[in-house]
Amino acid sequence: MEEQQLIFTNHVAEALDNILAEIGPAKVFVLADVNTAGLVLPRLQAESKAAAEAETIIVKAGDMNKNLESLSLIWKQLGERGATRHALLVNLGGGVVTDMGAFAAATFKRGIKCVNIPTTLLGAVDAAVGGKTGINFNGLKNEIGAFSLATAVIISTTFFNTLPEQELLSGYAEMLKHGLISDKHIYDSLLKYRIAMADPQRLLELLEQSVKVKEDIVRRDPTEQGIRRALNLGHTIGHAFESLALERRSPIPHGYAVAWGLVVELVLSHMKMGFPADELRRFAGYVLENYGAFDFTCDDYPELLRFMSHDKKNETPDQINFTLLRNIGDLQIDCTATPEEITAALDIYRDLMKL
Amino acid sequence: MEEQQLIFTNHVAEALDNILAEIGPAKVFVLADVNTAGLVLPRLQAESKAAAEAETIIVKAGDMNKNLESLSLIWKQLGERGATRHALLVNLGGGVVTDMGAFAAATFKRGIKCVNIPTTLLGAVDAAVGGKTGINFNGLKNEIGAFSLATAVIISTTFFNTLPEQELLSGYAEMLKHGLISDKHIYDSLLKYRIAMADPQRLLELLEQSVKVKEDIVRRDPTEQGIRRALNLGHTIGHAFESLALERRSPIPHGYAVAWGLVVELVLSHMKMGFPADELRRFAGYVLENYGAFDFTCDDYPELLRFMSHDKKNETPDQINFTLLRNIGDLQIDCTATPEEITAALDIYRDLMKL
Repeated sequence: MEEQQLIFTNHVAEALDNILAEIGPAKVFVLADVNTAGLVLPRLQAESKAAAEAETIIVKAGDMNKNLESLSLIWKQLGERGATRHALLVNLGGGVVTDMGAFAAATFKRGIKCVNIPTTLLGAVDAAVGGKTGINFNGLKNEIGAFSLATAVIISTTFFNTLPEQELLSGYAEMLKHGLISDKHIYDSLLKYRIAMADPQRLLELLEQSVKVKEDIVRRDPTEQGIRRALNLGHTIGHAFESLALERRSPIPHGYAVAWGLVVELVLSHMKMGFPADELRRFAGYVLENYGAFDFTCDDYPELLRFMSHDKKNETPDQINFTLLRNIGDLQIDCTATPEEITAALDIYRDLMKL
Repeated sequence: MEEQQLIFTNHVAEALDNILAEIGPAKVFVLADVNTAGLVLPRLQAESKAAAEAETIIVKAGDMNKNLESLSLIWKQLGERGATRHALLVNLGGGVVTDMGAFAAATFKRGIKCVNIPTTLLGAVDAAVGGKTGINFNGLKNEIGAFSLATAVIISTTFFNTLPEQELLSGYAEMLKHGLISDKHIYDSLLKYRIAMADPQRLLELLEQSVKVKEDIVRRDPTEQGIRRALNLGHTIGHAFESLALERRSPIPHGYAVAWGLVVELVLSHMKMGFPADELRRFAGYVLENYGAFDFTCDDYPELLRFMSHDKKNETPDQINFTLLRNIGDLQIDCTATPEEITAALDIYRDLMKL
């Protein structure tokens, strides 16, 4: 895959006009969902000449609309409104818009350029960077897609002021994950920042640090053959929590599930790899304070284990795959844990989270 | 893009079993259309253990079914019949099957491996090699797709004995094109072979030579930024002939259109680049003898020029893009010709073809 230009700025319109002047596309399209079309696009159009002159394509919001129907609509609009292979698509939105828009761009006339402008913290730190694009299909998340890097990603915190705090915390969990897999300095700076205080300039600095952790890993392993699996830290357990919550009909935000999943996987890291107990307690305390706790009893263990055994990272269903840490920044991909070990870790999680 | 393994053999089953043993996929699927499922798949299953044990997916035949509906069916069947990201798809068929199957593989779970087994000469020399994958969409050919190389392509002439001679000649025109853009030795060997004599072993040798010409160009320019446009020789005029024939409701085979398009583009090459007159006459004679002539009058010129001006290779509609030759193997991409020059070339074509 080609290189991806990452631009960290709180002057988004200027950055967009500059990058488009540099690329020189034949025609510019902006993809937004109904939310960003109402809240964010007008702000961008007011300041960016390119955005004001672009054709806009608007799709329905929400993960349930990250589907083939919306994708077809994007392809169709591009074709019918004169996109050649020299056109460029700007994806303005959260993970749904950047995932789907970047996939549409990767496949329209065998690939046109795109620029991602994530409008959520989770999108900025996760979906918009690193080239995983796609849609949900046949009831499965991201079943269809491609590894394809946006030409540029403009990362800013200016649009986050319209987001609820829960949404910010959800994104921040992925930043904590990047802290855990990078180094103690980055990790410490994250634990010191209080998301509720909402300092956009400081958040942009932390975000830059965090995105670069991801970018570095993606550059080394774009298609997840090895080290990129480090980015799955917290997600094996986290996905099981999300699935359980969905089954109970009270869904939890993805980032919250990751935060709680990280606690359990650090417990496993402590048990199996000697991850320091004091760091574990410190992290669990931070999560409890900011995210509260995901509540379950030992009656839920079999169901949680069942969800984990279906994880697409596993080689076989009874060997559950994890990334574990020996210490902050010292990781080991392709670990496995037995149901007994996971059960023990879930017990300790419930202790730590005072359940 | 990664490297693509090309296997030239008339022992297809053995080659398939070997390559699958080497790759070691978790599960194998074979995609065929209703024609190859009836005529070719049983032969392959009788000799190849892997093919006999594979799950089969069957789609409707024909270019009009190279569409989103068939693609969705392939994705769905893969998912519902247990394809993980370690599964592999074998595409057994002509250009429709290999284009669409390879695109399905490139996008299922962000990419699984695939092996192409072209069953037509045109497929072997053109569609199955080089990573251009995709489907027709919204009335446009190959509107949606990706550049994605099959892991391996098994090229054989053993399945061609079920093909009508017209089909073989159609594929042979692309081989002639590869001869023209490579060197005099390859070109001469092609003009000496008589397709009607049907010597499969000799055809396989010529095919290997020819595919390697394409492979070499694709390796230097996988996404058609420059030199890969050389492969469009004959196609600017050829596509216009195809469109005119379609408008007259008497469609012509793609390769025939390319053969006739090559004659006109060699005339242009002679006029603008000094391509030798005797080589031009020799080529026109070969085409006339084997393909006959595409018949039109000067009343059709405006319509032909209109089709050319819509070609997606043009930068602007009135500068029509061509690849031209100074001599066999000595090419110049990104040439343009005026309507007057093209008109003159069409006149000369009609003379050469005794119309």
